[in-house]
Amino acid sequence: MSYDRLDELGKRLEAIEHAQAMLGVDEAVNMPVGGGEKRAEAMSVLAGLYHEMATAPQVVDWIAAAEAEPLDEMQQAAMREFRRVHTNMTCLTPDFVRRQIAARVRSEQLWREVRPGGDWQSFLPAFEGVVATAREEASLRAAALGLEPYDAMMEQYDPGNRAADITPVFAELKAFLKDFAPEALAHQEDKLARRPLKPFNAPFPIERQKALGLAMMEAIGFDFDHGRLDVSHHPFCGGVPSDVRMTTRYTTTEFLSSLMGILHETGHGLYEQNLPAAWSHWPLGKARGMAIHESQSLFVEQQMARSPEFWEWAMPHVREHLGDEALAGWEVEDILAHVHRIERGLIRVDADETTYPLHVILRYEIEKDLIEGKLAPRDVPEAWDAAMREYLGLSTIDTPRDGPLQDVHWPSGAFGYFPSYTLGAMTAAQQWAALERAHPDVRQHMRDGRFVILNDWRREHIWSQGSRWSTPELLERATGEKLDARHFTAHLRRRYLA
Amino acid sequence: MSYDRLDELGKRLEAIEHAQAMLGVDEAVNMPVGGGEKRAEAMSVLAGLYHEMATAPQVVDWIAAAEAEPLDEMQQAAMREFRRVHTNMTCLTPDFVRRQIAARVRSEQLWREVRPGGDWQSFLPAFEGVVATAREEASLRAAALGLEPYDAMMEQYDPGNRAADITPVFAELKAFLKDFAPEALAHQEDKLARRPLKPFNAPFPIERQKALGLAMMEAIGFDFDHGRLDVSHHPFCGGVPSDVRMTTRYTTTEFLSSLMGILHETGHGLYEQNLPAAWSHWPLGKARGMAIHESQSLFVEQQMARSPEFWEWAMPHVREHLGDEALAGWEVEDILAHVHRIERGLIRVDADETTYPLHVILRYEIEKDLIEGKLAPRDVPEAWDAAMREYLGLSTIDTPRDGPLQDVHWPSGAFGYFPSYTLGAMTAAQQWAALERAHPDVRQHMRDGRFVILNDWRREHIWSQGSRWSTPELLERATGEKLDARHFTAHLRRRYLA
Repeated sequence: MSYDRLDELGKRLEAIEHAQAMLGVDEAVNMPVGGGEKRAEAMSVLAGLYHEMATAPQVVDWIAAAEAEPLDEMQQAAMREFRRVHTNMTCLTPDFVRRQIAARVRSEQLWREVRPGGDWQSFLPAFEGVVATAREEASLRAAALGLEPYDAMMEQYDPGNRAADITPVFAELKAFLKDFAPEALAHQEDKLARRPLKPFNAPFPIERQKALGLAMMEAIGFDFDHGRLDVSHHPFCGGVPSDVRMTTRYTTTEFLSSLMGILHETGHGLYEQNLPAAWSHWPLGKARGMAIHESQSLFVEQQMARSPEFWEWAMPHVREHLGDEALAGWEVEDILAHVHRIERGLIRVDADETTYPLHVILRYEIEKDLIEGKLAPRDVPEAWDAAMREYLGLSTIDTPRDGPLQDVHWPSGAFGYFPSYTLGAMTAAQQWAALERAHPDVRQHMRDGRFVILNDWRREHIWSQGSRWSTPELLERATGEKLDARHFTAHLRRRYLA
Repeated sequence: MSYDRLDELGKRLEAIEHAQAMLGVDEAVNMPVGGGEKRAEAMSVLAGLYHEMATAPQVVDWIAAAEAEPLDEMQQAAMREFRRVHTNMTCLTPDFVRRQIAARVRSEQLWREVRPGGDWQSFLPAFEGVVATAREEASLRAAALGLEPYDAMMEQYDPGNRAADITPVFAELKAFLKDFAPEALAHQEDKLARRPLKPFNAPFPIERQKALGLAMMEAIGFDFDHGRLDVSHHPFCGGVPSDVRMTTRYTTTEFLSSLMGILHETGHGLYEQNLPAAWSHWPLGKARGMAIHESQSLFVEQQMARSPEFWEWAMPHVREHLGDEALAGWEVEDILAHVHRIERGLIRVDADETTYPLHVILRYEIEKDLIEGKLAPRDVPEAWDAAMREYLGLSTIDTPRDGPLQDVHWPSGAFGYFPSYTLGAMTAAQQWAALERAHPDVRQHMRDGRFVILNDWRREHIWSQGSRWSTPELLERATGEKLDARHFTAHLRRRYLA
């Protein structure tokens, strides 16, 4: 059977992915600097081998033949997803890929050079090159997939996401946040006037922070037989489902940034650990995409770990691990004041949950226009500044470093990725709402440190589903409704105006 | 040019080796237990890919064509070694390899089961199977290489080593050690009567031991830009030349076992780090073999790090890292009494340098007879016991667990490997003697903590040579003479009868 050939191929591809994932983790966590050159060579050979194997001429014949074989429902779903991935992987010509890599390398290198000085004009020619190849990529993908160009770019990250569905939802969210953000800031000022922010009683020894982080991971369901926690400069969740490697970084001046980072990555880790293991060598068995993955990390970070109920449970554990004196005089409200701290700023990665979506929507609008040819690369700084002034009342026209030069995504050629962040935040809120409808006592469970029903719900509705459904289908099946901004806006209102 | 095709193939093989090496390190150092199954699958796929690529039908044609191309001297050496490795890799039929793996897996599994109880009779059928396939392997290798069967087995580990050369040297060493071992023991008793062994002032915190180990590694030349030290259950030196991963393990009751282990592995690590980098993707650029590798670890451990001069330098550093009180009242002689401690025993891995060779020679004699069909597997316990009684005055006839069941080598099908250990110890002594002839003040250098001339000598004569010469050629070029037991026996006499 051709299906069995694909099954066999999947096992070989899974082994290469395993090596790539673990070498990537090692590079970030352990590798001494001098190991980098040979590591890069090894990674490049593995990527080439993977591509050769996955796109070998006979594979497309196997797919066609397997689709005609008698398959059960899951096998049919596996074939659909295999074909989708194969089409996405083969729709660019080798010649185009070579030109694109050259444009991306040039652009990303130049970006690293000019960014500190904010020299947009020097960057512009490379940026024009990378936008030109991105437009070409979008049109090649669009032709192969029968989609609009920008949709074809998003399809790589969140299959099924369409601008026609997202744009109105983002418009609603934007309209809400433009008014809500200043309101929440004013509300915060009032609260802090009544109850000033408590300073941290530093230092917090790293060993204690680590023990606390491990205890929290375990409590919310991370399986240490199939994963571990390490340290790296940029925290991430990597590895493979059977061996999830999470990282964090520590500072001794406070403990919340590492702890919240750990909880965020644990959300990713739980998703990976609970994917359907029997399908791990098929695209079907993989996580659905970037937006859903981010929804799992934000479910833990924003929905659970910034809630008062979570901290009612967590506070004694924090005291136990960091020592009573570290939190002398602190109440749950004092922790919440820190984890709910909001601030208007220019930088996306520093933004809080009330303004982060505005940063993303700004990028979504600009990159969509770039791909569709409605905006020229040279006009990006003005478009960026206009949107920043409208959405957040801040100007970046004189500081491109804090404007369009701040993110690596575009310089490295990634267009269509930004929406995933905010779609993740919104669908996390929507999942929480569905969970709370099913289990109205879920907040009491959290208060008691009982996370079983929270995990069971996500395991059933999200984790175990792998890539069986498109992103919007998965959301609708899990929550009973299409993407709806009101769950996220209600969540923000409850948290930041109460 | 076909030579260039092989150069390109070498780069691809190097990438797979890189992945295999690093996944192996990760497995021993970091991997949670639940990650093992998928890791084993990934390793098996990588091994299969490697074999496919290295033995593809066109490779043998490229070799023949390249050998006829105009090549410089190093390229010719590279081709010689490439062909040698290729012949060794392809001289077994796929059908035989499958049967052999089955016999080895059965034998090794059974060995793990029966070893604790020492049940030789239950093990015997599997052992007979593994010896039968080893004999078959030896005859296949012998035919392909034009060597005697046992020589063909050793050829995998130490190219150029021949039983006809080794047997007389081992005979001389055995004759020496049978008398020397009891003499050295008596001498030790006298010394300890005059100056009793000082007990360790435990505990020795692991962090301090680690800092001491790192400082020693750095002092003797380990490059931390291209390597690191971790912890694993069985210490090893792995990774790749550009990124050498060493491990040790710590106990808090004393500090010498981890430190001496670190120094031993650093010897391996220095060899790897100083191989000719330009040839890293050719067999030519790899370490020469097991005996030479072991000679590099034993050069550091036995020649350097058990010498009085080394400890004159090291003692203050030990005090600095472990704290004065940890070594209160200790002099260099007290450390030396510990690192020179000798004891007669049944177990090879616990043996000291005065008796270890006897354990090895015993195995060499038995495994050679097994491969040559002069000894039946069922007669091994009697042969073992007879030799143990003759060489060390100990009997194992009633405790096969401490006799032929003690090592994993034979159960896993590795015949021809054991001599490497003692050849390593002997050639380390021979290298030291050559170095001391070239630099009569080398002991003073060590006393001052100056290791440059020690490393320069090994870099020039051993490390930079990669696999350019056969094992005996390399030794002769480096030391100016063939393998000669008298350097090792003189070393033992000086150390243990002084």
